[in-house]
Amino acid sequence: MTDRPMYIPTFEDMLAAHDRVRPHIHRTPVLTSSHLNALAGCEMFFKCENLQKAGAFKVRGASNAVFGLSDEQASKGVATHSSGNHALSLAYAAGQRGIPCNVVMPHTAPQAKKDAVRGYGGIITECEPSTTSREAVFAEVQAKTGSDFVHPYNDPRVIAGQGTCSRELLEQMEDFGGAPDIVMAPIGGGGMISGTCLTLSNLAPEVKIIAAEPEQADDAARSFRAGYIIADDAPETVADGLKVPLKDLTWQFVSKHVSDILTASEQEIIDAMLLTWKRMKIVIEPSSAVPLATILKNPDVFAGKRVGVILTGGNVDLMRLPWMAQ
Amino acid sequence: MTDRPMYIPTFEDMLAAHDRVRPHIHRTPVLTSSHLNALAGCEMFFKCENLQKAGAFKVRGASNAVFGLSDEQASKGVATHSSGNHALSLAYAAGQRGIPCNVVMPHTAPQAKKDAVRGYGGIITECEPSTTSREAVFAEVQAKTGSDFVHPYNDPRVIAGQGTCSRELLEQMEDFGGAPDIVMAPIGGGGMISGTCLTLSNLAPEVKIIAAEPEQADDAARSFRAGYIIADDAPETVADGLKVPLKDLTWQFVSKHVSDILTASEQEIIDAMLLTWKRMKIVIEPSSAVPLATILKNPDVFAGKRVGVILTGGNVDLMRLPWMAQ
Repeated sequence: MTDRPMYIPTFEDMLAAHDRVRPHIHRTPVLTSSHLNALAGCEMFFKCENLQKAGAFKVRGASNAVFGLSDEQASKGVATHSSGNHALSLAYAAGQRGIPCNVVMPHTAPQAKKDAVRGYGGIITECEPSTTSREAVFAEVQAKTGSDFVHPYNDPRVIAGQGTCSRELLEQMEDFGGAPDIVMAPIGGGGMISGTCLTLSNLAPEVKIIAAEPEQADDAARSFRAGYIIADDAPETVADGLKVPLKDLTWQFVSKHVSDILTASEQEIIDAMLLTWKRMKIVIEPSSAVPLATILKNPDVFAGKRVGVILTGGNVDLMRLPWMAQ
Repeated sequence: MTDRPMYIPTFEDMLAAHDRVRPHIHRTPVLTSSHLNALAGCEMFFKCENLQKAGAFKVRGASNAVFGLSDEQASKGVATHSSGNHALSLAYAAGQRGIPCNVVMPHTAPQAKKDAVRGYGGIITECEPSTTSREAVFAEVQAKTGSDFVHPYNDPRVIAGQGTCSRELLEQMEDFGGAPDIVMAPIGGGGMISGTCLTLSNLAPEVKIIAAEPEQADDAARSFRAGYIIADDAPETVADGLKVPLKDLTWQFVSKHVSDILTASEQEIIDAMLLTWKRMKIVIEPSSAVPLATILKNPDVFAGKRVGVILTGGNVDLMRLPWMAQ
């Protein structure tokens, strides 16, 4: 769906991305909880991207792509086929620039997701719930509009944008006595983790990067151990942002800079999510709870460490909370 | 229950309180939402005391009382008869100083509230669910322990402590282009509003102070209009932090410095609470949603204004959310 040769974003791309997106994003706060620290036996610093514009870190990468377009390309708009936070963020960013955002979604997608994308000004074109249909409809939309495809994660502009998050985290950690020992983020397609690798390998190469993944969608963990990309067909997990597989570009970063990928069960993820809501008073989506779930599960790995934890998003259906279905 | 003559806390008391409590509290962030601004037709700056230690602003006043005690008095501990956020906060602050905190609660209080107070190290003595029993048991506990009574709001130390919140808000608003036109907070007994009056009347007397109250517990609004304290017997509202009446000390501040008291219905409060969770991704309790509910209800009052809104707390039962009972 793209003819671009693989371009690996550089540290300078991340710096340029930060200048580009800064007017369009929140510098989200870093929060701490002495209760959670006592429970985990380590010191955690939560970078709250759930409080980000459009409710997730994805707006960093999406804004970098949107605001990096030439005026001519921008006038034709952008397009994507995600139905999650990336679509919301791309629609938000496109709206900020005043250009169209086309989103191809299966007609079976939940009405709430369609409403949310439309709420941010996205134009939805429906397809059948199959990869074949999605690709065909997407090609059609692109041909008709000439819009620029912004992949949810396997795009250098997106990765450079996501890298701005850990740059802010490092700066904000100055108020907490300096750089952490470890930075953690959940891993799905690997966009946030790749951006984190890009930034930290340049700014603070001594900081370990650990990814966290649902046991039920542990393709990245298995890829990491195997040394090549393993993609599962249709994993099922409450952490619905993390079902997608690694791709060639994110694999470059994950395979080079990640120290380990830890996993947590569905119940552990839900427990960590509820614990975060209860003690930190913030709304996080299940994907965001996976790092805390793995920290609580592996006390030996984290004992006494200072751990930066990226809370990736807060878009949940408040009418249907996972602990209520139990 | 106290023999102290009425001492009205001064601006210097608030400054001293801030130095005293700073090591024991969070400097909570100020968050904004362009979506909510568009909806309300004004610019709002939310001071997030729901993210405060023990989940509410009450820890400011409680810590000021606890850390202001002489060593001798401190060794005998503190006591209160609140069963809400003040009890949690007093127990937390006492725990920080390593002194006992006695809490008198009716045996009919929800188990969750008892557990929460005990979770922060509070010692509960149960009474019958009547004012007579509560006062008798409380007098007994005080006589036995010699502990210092810290009233939830009608105490100069508590009001001076609560005043530190709007001092921080004013400082933080420098990042948003300077002081707001209006500062809003919910009103129950009037502790937070009194602290706000104390601070703003000294630091920024041009800023209007508007309080917000549930229609179903509108005793402060009626008192404000009548010119004397009206106390209702047992008002019922989802905003359970706001059921208590004004007292002589808080009346001093409310009657002198508050511009208006606006009210909202139960449904408007629940809608504003859900809207805040949904768009701002933070957990707030119903009381915290009352200001936003009144802003949305009175667009003419707030049109084009810059409004500081104190989100007072985030202690809710995550298993029983008010919009799910609908």
